[in-house]
Amino acid sequence: MLLFTSQPLAFFASGSEGAKILLAIFIVLVAAKLFAEIFERLKQPAVVGEILAGVLIGASALNLIQTVTPSGEAATVGIVIDSLAEIGVIFLLFTVGLETRPSDIFKVGKIATLVAFMGAALPFLAGWGIVALWGGYSGIEAIFTGAAMVATSVGITARVLSSMGLISADASRIILAAAVIDDVIGLLVLAVVSSLASGSINYLHIIFTAVLAIGFTIFIIWLGARTVNRMKEKIEALQIQHSLFIFSLILCFGLAAVANLIGIAGIIGAFLAGVALSEASDETDLHHRAHTLTEFTTPFFLVNIGLKLNLAVFASTQILLLATVVTVLAVIAKFIGCGIPVYQSGKRRAIQVGVGMIPRGEVGIVVAQIGLSLSAVSDAMYAVVLFMAVATTLIAPPLIKWAFAGEQPGEEKLSTRELEYDIR
Amino acid sequence: MLLFTSQPLAFFASGSEGAKILLAIFIVLVAAKLFAEIFERLKQPAVVGEILAGVLIGASALNLIQTVTPSGEAATVGIVIDSLAEIGVIFLLFTVGLETRPSDIFKVGKIATLVAFMGAALPFLAGWGIVALWGGYSGIEAIFTGAAMVATSVGITARVLSSMGLISADASRIILAAAVIDDVIGLLVLAVVSSLASGSINYLHIIFTAVLAIGFTIFIIWLGARTVNRMKEKIEALQIQHSLFIFSLILCFGLAAVANLIGIAGIIGAFLAGVALSEASDETDLHHRAHTLTEFTTPFFLVNIGLKLNLAVFASTQILLLATVVTVLAVIAKFIGCGIPVYQSGKRRAIQVGVGMIPRGEVGIVVAQIGLSLSAVSDAMYAVVLFMAVATTLIAPPLIKWAFAGEQPGEEKLSTRELEYDIR
Repeated sequence: MLLFTSQPLAFFASGSEGAKILLAIFIVLVAAKLFAEIFERLKQPAVVGEILAGVLIGASALNLIQTVTPSGEAATVGIVIDSLAEIGVIFLLFTVGLETRPSDIFKVGKIATLVAFMGAALPFLAGWGIVALWGGYSGIEAIFTGAAMVATSVGITARVLSSMGLISADASRIILAAAVIDDVIGLLVLAVVSSLASGSINYLHIIFTAVLAIGFTIFIIWLGARTVNRMKEKIEALQIQHSLFIFSLILCFGLAAVANLIGIAGIIGAFLAGVALSEASDETDLHHRAHTLTEFTTPFFLVNIGLKLNLAVFASTQILLLATVVTVLAVIAKFIGCGIPVYQSGKRRAIQVGVGMIPRGEVGIVVAQIGLSLSAVSDAMYAVVLFMAVATTLIAPPLIKWAFAGEQPGEEKLSTRELEYDIR
Repeated sequence: MLLFTSQPLAFFASGSEGAKILLAIFIVLVAAKLFAEIFERLKQPAVVGEILAGVLIGASALNLIQTVTPSGEAATVGIVIDSLAEIGVIFLLFTVGLETRPSDIFKVGKIATLVAFMGAALPFLAGWGIVALWGGYSGIEAIFTGAAMVATSVGITARVLSSMGLISADASRIILAAAVIDDVIGLLVLAVVSSLASGSINYLHIIFTAVLAIGFTIFIIWLGARTVNRMKEKIEALQIQHSLFIFSLILCFGLAAVANLIGIAGIIGAFLAGVALSEASDETDLHHRAHTLTEFTTPFFLVNIGLKLNLAVFASTQILLLATVVTVLAVIAKFIGCGIPVYQSGKRRAIQVGVGMIPRGEVGIVVAQIGLSLSAVSDAMYAVVLFMAVATTLIAPPLIKWAFAGEQPGEEKLSTRELEYDIR
């Protein structure tokens, strides 16, 4: 006969984990939007408010959201918020991709590659150098710090530019394309650094990873949109409701999963899915639907960054000093490294690209965690890198707002706005 | 200095839990929509296809989604799918609520109350009776089986009616209102039965629960819409983008959390939030946004029901026989109990309401789980109830489609459809 798994269906039971999760979702949304509103009124970026809301409701302050159990394991609420955060940044980059044509990327391809390489090299050298010179840390630790300073967290910049209606500005295109390349570079740096930490470099594996990551990215940009355009009519003829929307969700998570399996960030896959759909989504409600999913899930991404911060734990002023120095270097090195290649197009654009690449966010944290798991990074250095990752993420939005002030919203964004206006 | 929790940010790391979750989301969406498409082409309800997709990718067959670890604990993927399932049914009922005015509920209040009471009493007596007569099971087990047969899982019916554009049909209104009352009755029955199982009945606690649940429901239906209507302008004047949509998300999860804390299902709170917003949402894009969130998350709710099924475990034909008899009784008792009070409005409507209340889904499973946790229910009886819960959920959709065939889509739904058409 039929029998069923006896696994607890706790989420449906009243007054249990299910209630906790609904309450956590409620608290995250209220805190995020309350702070977003306050920051908007103070003419400050809403994203900073939402990240600080996470600090406030996290372990450092009100402790309303417990992401870990008292024994230190990941709590169910923590797992769910983490997942919603990941889904949030996936949808965020997917929406940005929808407003980016493949030709937009090719147009800025050369300069974006330069931006990505210089923007990787300078921070890496700065991070490596300062920790090596500081003393008291191992050589491999210094290299890991450099590696953590390489990758840009494009989600924050995308969110700020998107809320300003500037995702299709010229500088935004360069930032987005550079962030994609940057992520591939970050992957390779991490592969090399991890090999170093485990003692021997597996060149074959690194070359294989590089070919796979670059091949995947180029393949999707090159053929993705064409394939989707050709399939569009067939997809729309399916029996299921909203078939194009359903297809786009499947493509988004499918490419995110593949990207993740290759080793690059899932958000790069989601971004590429958006790019592949950018032409087919014209005159459909796909933009509006993607925006809706982003609006719901992005607060979890932003609040979750704040939740990771625990102000309750204090360490030596030595570490605080190093963290501050590393953060300042992370900002300057990225700003100069990414700004210089764009300088020929004007100082203003160089500044825009430079500040747009500053946030390290979750990407820097991941590198530090891998270092920790390989025992290549000490707890003290882990704290330094975490500080740098969150601090750069909080510093960047006001700078981005300032650098892009007065810029005219692009054509694409205008059409989306008109679309949204129509529906009201 | 600032330090951070050293909790693993596994979701952002490549090739780890994060990749597993993205892959799981991808698999669930593909499987659900593939089967939905096949079932649509066979002129069968898509929901049945999506539930069966869950059976196929679950432990019984392909085992693509492992909701439990080899040691039997809830796996991270299982927790995330469970949460998305819960969010899915929350949005589903929220969307249905948006298309239901408070006056719609009051209009059918009297008849819905009768439907709920008769639809609770008959299945309870039938379940109790058959298990008591069957022999080999304790008296408390018989009572628990009866209790598990009381509560209707309105999500399935709502999904079928919504996809047919019939959520505002007269019979649909009765079903929805009755399902709300039904859930309160189910809560009270469960409270009494649980008290019995633990030896003594706490009358004060049961009365308190009853007053709280009934008071909450009536309070929101009565004052919710008025309060929201009065606040609408202020909400729309906020600085944050899409403030009315954000407010509606907060209200949805807030009332769901409160409902859950009181002891009734979270989906009742979400439904009431929708009702409170039903008037304010006119001429806004709220319906479209809610539909989008529902489209994304509902597959997880449906697939998750199928995932719970494990065909690999076989038991005695005795149990299979009892499960079949209990299922048949669950269908007939609910159909007759809910149909009779409506019979005066015509046979057709009586049949519509009768079949609409058949699915037990997750609600029946929860009751059985509580019985299991109180040691009042044996593993064999738990299997019987699980079988009944899933079987009634699979049987109902074709019957609902048949009973409502030829019905004209309601006014509300038409306006939503026009709205969706405008955006394309």
